[in-house]
Amino acid sequence: MSATASNALPIVQFRSRPGTVDLAWGHPDPATLPIREWAQACVGALRRYGGSALAYGHPNGPGPLVEWLVDRLGRTDGRAPDPPRIFVTAGASHALDLVAGLLCRSGDTVLVDAPTYHLAFRVLADHGVTLAPTPADRDGIDPAATRDLVARLRREGRRVPLLYLVPTFGNPTGRSLAEPRRAELVAVAEQTGLVLVEDDTYRELAYDGPAPPSLYSAAEDGAVIRLGSFAKTVAPGLRLGWLTAAPALVAALAGRGYIDSGGGVNHTNALSMAEFATAGAYDRHLDRVRARYRGQRDALVSAVHRHLPEVTFTTPAGGWFLWLRLPAPIGATALLPYADTNGVSYLPGTHFFVTDTGDTHLRLSFSLFAPDQLEEGTRRLARAMTQLGSAPEPGRPQ
Amino acid sequence: MSATASNALPIVQFRSRPGTVDLAWGHPDPATLPIREWAQACVGALRRYGGSALAYGHPNGPGPLVEWLVDRLGRTDGRAPDPPRIFVTAGASHALDLVAGLLCRSGDTVLVDAPTYHLAFRVLADHGVTLAPTPADRDGIDPAATRDLVARLRREGRRVPLLYLVPTFGNPTGRSLAEPRRAELVAVAEQTGLVLVEDDTYRELAYDGPAPPSLYSAAEDGAVIRLGSFAKTVAPGLRLGWLTAAPALVAALAGRGYIDSGGGVNHTNALSMAEFATAGAYDRHLDRVRARYRGQRDALVSAVHRHLPEVTFTTPAGGWFLWLRLPAPIGATALLPYADTNGVSYLPGTHFFVTDTGDTHLRLSFSLFAPDQLEEGTRRLARAMTQLGSAPEPGRPQ
Repeated sequence: MSATASNALPIVQFRSRPGTVDLAWGHPDPATLPIREWAQACVGALRRYGGSALAYGHPNGPGPLVEWLVDRLGRTDGRAPDPPRIFVTAGASHALDLVAGLLCRSGDTVLVDAPTYHLAFRVLADHGVTLAPTPADRDGIDPAATRDLVARLRREGRRVPLLYLVPTFGNPTGRSLAEPRRAELVAVAEQTGLVLVEDDTYRELAYDGPAPPSLYSAAEDGAVIRLGSFAKTVAPGLRLGWLTAAPALVAALAGRGYIDSGGGVNHTNALSMAEFATAGAYDRHLDRVRARYRGQRDALVSAVHRHLPEVTFTTPAGGWFLWLRLPAPIGATALLPYADTNGVSYLPGTHFFVTDTGDTHLRLSFSLFAPDQLEEGTRRLARAMTQLGSAPEPGRPQ
Repeated sequence: MSATASNALPIVQFRSRPGTVDLAWGHPDPATLPIREWAQACVGALRRYGGSALAYGHPNGPGPLVEWLVDRLGRTDGRAPDPPRIFVTAGASHALDLVAGLLCRSGDTVLVDAPTYHLAFRVLADHGVTLAPTPADRDGIDPAATRDLVARLRREGRRVPLLYLVPTFGNPTGRSLAEPRRAELVAVAEQTGLVLVEDDTYRELAYDGPAPPSLYSAAEDGAVIRLGSFAKTVAPGLRLGWLTAAPALVAALAGRGYIDSGGGVNHTNALSMAEFATAGAYDRHLDRVRARYRGQRDALVSAVHRHLPEVTFTTPAGGWFLWLRLPAPIGATALLPYADTNGVSYLPGTHFFVTDTGDTHLRLSFSLFAPDQLEEGTRRLARAMTQLGSAPEPGRPQ
């Protein structure tokens, strides 16, 4: 059977640039996706649940996946949620959109970590809110300064419903917020009523030991909504994730009009995932991808040390990204056309801030490429930096 | 292998009431869902598309499904859309939520057909809009009066971005808007800039000949957004549908923050559906369910004629519903407790209006039950009506 469709319309989101080691994409290598095991899970779920696997699903998500999540989170996080605290979503981006739809009103000010996941900005902005960066230093969000900022904004009459952050193996930095700051930030949320929306997408991709407990697991009900995902651990095309939150918030989400109308937002896939997970395929696949990504991280870290000695960075203990600080006066935006010319690409740091900053940094994603390609990409980046450094007019490719 | 999960958390949305013929639910009988064929489609899509079936999907929907929709709609509707006019959704309810998120602002007035699909009211209301009924008579929406209403509301300073309706085999009436009114309504939309959101969920469930061409197929770009669904034709748990609209609107949906972040909203299932459809399973299954629902419609129509001679209704040429007018002075709300006592249920007509009206009608859904159960349910309903009619104090069960 042919491996591709005969028509010319695109199938996937990724746009390949032949000849380019494109380190801009936070996507998995399609060759690593669990094709055979997922097919077995689909067949198994349809056999086990019959018509119930194809009927309108329970709005909160089907019981078998919720049960498995309770068990799994009890082993990978600081505390197991109980079922009324779990809601199955159509992916973390969908979850963020749902949560913003519930908590935000047009005109609100929403805080975002600085830097943080750039595409979350647009999800939030679609709800008519103004985005403001949280005060942060090199160790991440500053909880006391965040408390002051919230107080100031509210004194000015602004609603400040939530703060979005990726505190564990973050995008783009790969870093995790240190435990004392986690506790302080949770306390700020509990005291001010600010809801922390904790994007916990990368928890399972821990390479050097367990991930720190989530903010959610340390917080009182209502202070944190934690977004989980199967996009990085199993497959992004499934559009399947979950969130953990206070029972009242889970009930409010399940009661949204469109979920009341259509039932569980990704029911059939959720039951296939329950089958995949309880059959042991989740653990086996996660072991494989964790080993693979660990190897890719190590390869990229070592290549950067070797070929880009003037660049500084913190080795990430998990996730998909390296956050490089460029040697002054090189700017990530000015470097990009030189990189393109040399067959490598990345995202300039400016993408990850809502204010005009970040050009001192760039993000490399190591999820999509094998170690030798990561090495080659780094070599090309070094060449681009040399060319930019010797260019007669910085900022223009020669 | 056991047919049910061992845990107590619910799997599906449907809540069974043992002993009751519950004609309130617009759900398919789980026994009719294409379990074996869907399993084959999942396996086939994973074999054909490999990792591309599990990767982040193209935001507009994967090419193979879009291509099939172009072909299918060319055969079942007045005009085939081209690919830039198609967007694959996570079901019609999701589509309505997406469209409302794009077109509505808090404080807008949104028009809804009267009567129409009740759960759409809540989807729209989640966007902070006020709902107002369109002027309608026994033949459905009155286009000229609708034009006047829009003009009046706008003179009063209201934004009136859209009108929601189910013009083909409608929910709850089962009726289709007559062709002259379709043309007039489309002209009103084209002239006023009111967007018609055409919920076309039931088009394929035509029992007495082809469905009328959609409003979409007769309109200029921008006047109509048509929502399609696989929930009724294949399986609701998949949460898969599509819409057809102007290219600019499709591009705006594909550019929503959460879709840019997560890619196609139901990618893996969309490719499985492409496989299901191109393998011929869609046509075979649709033939089966159409014959089945036609038989169920005929059984219910005949049972109502036999057991409820004082009730009036129009036999629906498609869809899932019978819309009964009760003989005065019986009200659907007063009748409901008598129905419950007799082991039958339905939705009172009041559900389907945003104003305080509709108690003269009730909706029976024939999708979920076999002909003998529909007959028995009707017999019970007749008993309930007799009991209410002879009750000392109407409105209280004896």
